[in-house]
Amino acid sequence: MNNPFWSPALAALEPYVPGEQPRGTRLVKLNTNENPYPPSARAMEVLADPQLPDALRRYPDPESSELCAAIAAQEGLDPAQVFVGNGSDEVLAHAFYSFFRRGADEPLLFPDITYSFYPVYCQLYDIPHRRPALREDFSIAVEDYAGPAAGVILPNPNAPTGRFLPLEEIEQLLQLQPERVVAIDEAYIDFGGDSAAQLIDRYPNLLVIRTLSKSHALAGLRLGYALGQPHLVEGLQRTKNSFNSYPIDSVAQRLAAAAIGDSAWLRETSAKVIATRERVTTDLAALDFEVVPSLANFVLARPRAIDAETLYLQLRERQILVRYFNKPRIGDYLRISIGTDAEMDALLEACREIQATQDKSQTQ
Amino acid sequence: MNNPFWSPALAALEPYVPGEQPRGTRLVKLNTNENPYPPSARAMEVLADPQLPDALRRYPDPESSELCAAIAAQEGLDPAQVFVGNGSDEVLAHAFYSFFRRGADEPLLFPDITYSFYPVYCQLYDIPHRRPALREDFSIAVEDYAGPAAGVILPNPNAPTGRFLPLEEIEQLLQLQPERVVAIDEAYIDFGGDSAAQLIDRYPNLLVIRTLSKSHALAGLRLGYALGQPHLVEGLQRTKNSFNSYPIDSVAQRLAAAAIGDSAWLRETSAKVIATRERVTTDLAALDFEVVPSLANFVLARPRAIDAETLYLQLRERQILVRYFNKPRIGDYLRISIGTDAEMDALLEACREIQATQDKSQTQ
Repeated sequence: MNNPFWSPALAALEPYVPGEQPRGTRLVKLNTNENPYPPSARAMEVLADPQLPDALRRYPDPESSELCAAIAAQEGLDPAQVFVGNGSDEVLAHAFYSFFRRGADEPLLFPDITYSFYPVYCQLYDIPHRRPALREDFSIAVEDYAGPAAGVILPNPNAPTGRFLPLEEIEQLLQLQPERVVAIDEAYIDFGGDSAAQLIDRYPNLLVIRTLSKSHALAGLRLGYALGQPHLVEGLQRTKNSFNSYPIDSVAQRLAAAAIGDSAWLRETSAKVIATRERVTTDLAALDFEVVPSLANFVLARPRAIDAETLYLQLRERQILVRYFNKPRIGDYLRISIGTDAEMDALLEACREIQATQDKSQTQ
Repeated sequence: MNNPFWSPALAALEPYVPGEQPRGTRLVKLNTNENPYPPSARAMEVLADPQLPDALRRYPDPESSELCAAIAAQEGLDPAQVFVGNGSDEVLAHAFYSFFRRGADEPLLFPDITYSFYPVYCQLYDIPHRRPALREDFSIAVEDYAGPAAGVILPNPNAPTGRFLPLEEIEQLLQLQPERVVAIDEAYIDFGGDSAAQLIDRYPNLLVIRTLSKSHALAGLRLGYALGQPHLVEGLQRTKNSFNSYPIDSVAQRLAAAAIGDSAWLRETSAKVIATRERVTTDLAALDFEVVPSLANFVLARPRAIDAETLYLQLRERQILVRYFNKPRIGDYLRISIGTDAEMDALLEACREIQATQDKSQTQ
């Protein structure tokens, strides 16, 4: 890996590895927390807009003003409190650059079990970090986030646990680090959690990050955003305008604005996902799984009757994809995205059969 | 600007300022080098693909494999020699991070007059740079690019001059810096220049960067790419996968692949732009402009009869936008994008009238 043309830091990077995106159409795909329902039909109408060819010929609005206004209207915020990016991953990258690059004695704080892209951004921008351990039950111990720090970042609900941190505890975090940005990554907030966005006017250090990938069924569109007081949004804009002036294409700006505006669609679809999650939680428990309480569109579940990696591989053989992390503390669990009821029935039935086969082979 | 939440480097950034994108529909917009012709109708058919909603629901292919294959086929290269990004600006940013972050005594080399985003990337990633001066006629003196360096980057044709550097001189650059990446930014290559891509197999240090924004009339789509030997592409992928796994959305991947495949459209449209450029060059000379020889879809031209900034402002009053740079050496010039013949006639007529009015007021 010692390529003479690579800059020294490049060879040391360990890039993020996303969940696989195989092309098979018969697959039950429960591995990347996509929404099982098609996106808002109202949003899709944008694709038929006869003005699109001319819009595509020209540079898009570098500030995505109409999209920011649509998000602000939905959130009851001012457009100056909204920043949009090419997926929440890009928003996160800019936030790490903008707020978390500080002294060697000020580490960024995030949980030991969390979104695995965070340590990659730290490497990219040479940001030291400290990772307080989640409690045994995977809840976040906020008192561990005190002391000299570059800031705090955590998903709420957390990934891949699905556990939700109540807003009172988010407020404690904000008060523990009043001089530093506390970024709450709300990728999964629309599946039952209470958003920290309502705290923005009271906390100048709060940055809330969202995505259309999960609750809006638009993972393929690459649209994320951040909400915060204007001075934080301005910081993100400075970084963005030093990296790529026009990150959001003309189709995505229009389509995302229409999707954000279709709140009836969001309400109905999220309610369906939540109902399926609750039902599957019960069904998995009946199959002798320990299920971590989740307010996300996935559950982290530990099969007691079979080794997690074995189950993952056997599900795979049956064309059912879930996510297995070969990592400390969660190596006995599977992360299972919430699909349609039919998809979850297929999963549950497969688990039942695999466990039965294994019981049989063990008793032989 | 001393915001306590901003990281120290953030406050010091001086972001890039793109050409303005006003919303007026009656404007003759010759300020950002967009293509005046609508994009390939074959590419636009992608928007009607009934599979798009389901594609948008899922994460896109993180590697944009089909798009890379389409580009490779067009260029006679291998897909492993192709990297795609969210506009060539993102490709450039990743190239700066991947190849040009070296010691304090190894500055990146680029011309004194060139794309003004380059020094911004240097600031973003703390890359020292040295800027050899163009000759009086705005040609590049390749011999100035020797010595210890992090690499070389330059647009060919150069922006905002439009001058083309012959491939023999590109080869001299590659030989002057055999251990460092020489990045040739070919945003404007399809308007008459000879691409350096044909040198890729012979030079492991050559990176060619392209965009669909100009010649493919898809500035609104945000699609750029880099061509180079696989070890350079792998370097860019490492950086990309440490920043944003899925930079290209599902619509853009499909639409760009279709546009790249429509080479008949590219040939015809570029021929029209070139013909207009040649004609306008003659017409501007007749109006007493000095026109720098251009192989791009713009010309840099110095009005001898009137102050350049005055002309810029008076054209603006007549709803004709061109680009004026208040900078050393080019402060007497205007950069004029090549529009349709009707748009260029409007520009020429306006210049004629403005100059006539000025002659009159000077003789009074």
